[in-house]
Amino acid sequence: MFISAEGLLEHWQGHRRLTRRVIEAFPDDQLFTFSIGGMRTFGELASELLAMAAPMTQGLATGDWEAYAADAVDSKGELLRLWDESTAEIDEFWARIPGERFQETVTSFGQYTGPAHWQVLYVVDNEIHHRGQGYVYLRALGVEPPLFYERD
Amino acid sequence: MFISAEGLLEHWQGHRRLTRRVIEAFPDDQLFTFSIGGMRTFGELASELLAMAAPMTQGLATGDWEAYAADAVDSKGELLRLWDESTAEIDEFWARIPGERFQETVTSFGQYTGPAHWQVLYVVDNEIHHRGQGYVYLRALGVEPPLFYERD
Repeated sequence: MFISAEGLLEHWQGHRRLTRRVIEAFPDDQLFTFSIGGMRTFGELASELLAMAAPMTQGLATGDWEAYAADAVDSKGELLRLWDESTAEIDEFWARIPGERFQETVTSFGQYTGPAHWQVLYVVDNEIHHRGQGYVYLRALGVEPPLFYERD
Repeated sequence: MFISAEGLLEHWQGHRRLTRRVIEAFPDDQLFTFSIGGMRTFGELASELLAMAAPMTQGLATGDWEAYAADAVDSKGELLRLWDESTAEIDEFWARIPGERFQETVTSFGQYTGPAHWQVLYVVDNEIHHRGQGYVYLRALGVEPPLFYERD
């Protein structure tokens, strides 16, 4: 065993606490407007993360897969509110995922097939990936990003 | 169990194949010169990744921790050569890490203390984080980055 299901949840929620701080660090007027090289704004990227995270745990726990759809969010306050709501949902659904599920092959959102651990890591890795992009946006805006290694 | 040690190695090497493609995607004359917001170049970031990856697996396998030090690399060819060398070293050292080690508390590089799985995930996550920043650099340079989900 590399890591337990409980350990991975704690690891992921640590990442999500850091991503929440990155959302908070954005100037309100730049979160949904600033971008580089034609990319999406960090507000749009964070909305994508929300559309994957809790729905993934719901699907793995219950077999019910919502259609993948990002909410149309346009303010920092609303994004943070949805973020916190997701945090609780992830904890609740995770506790209901049967231990053996993580080694089973699952089709998520009606289209992505692979082991459940691969599904979860995709969501976590995608968050780290886009948050790293948020760090560049913050630096370009002259804002010091939160420390990468602080996850409390 | 969320994921096995073997599964995590395969996952990580998949990420490393993608990062290698990001290095390759950079125009030769921008890899060690282009940056945004006062950040390091992608060549410097990739050199940091090299300084952490194989040395981490060496430490976990043998208990010998090299002093953390990034090589002074200044060409794409040399970076890719070191990248491939690391790929083989990681596979070799990983095979020698005792299975129970991943749940043990370890001090890496003489200074970072935590479970071995946490140590490895830090290295993997740091790679995803910096590679995401490389994607922004590529977009800013007008270069289409490799697909995030292709890990072959």
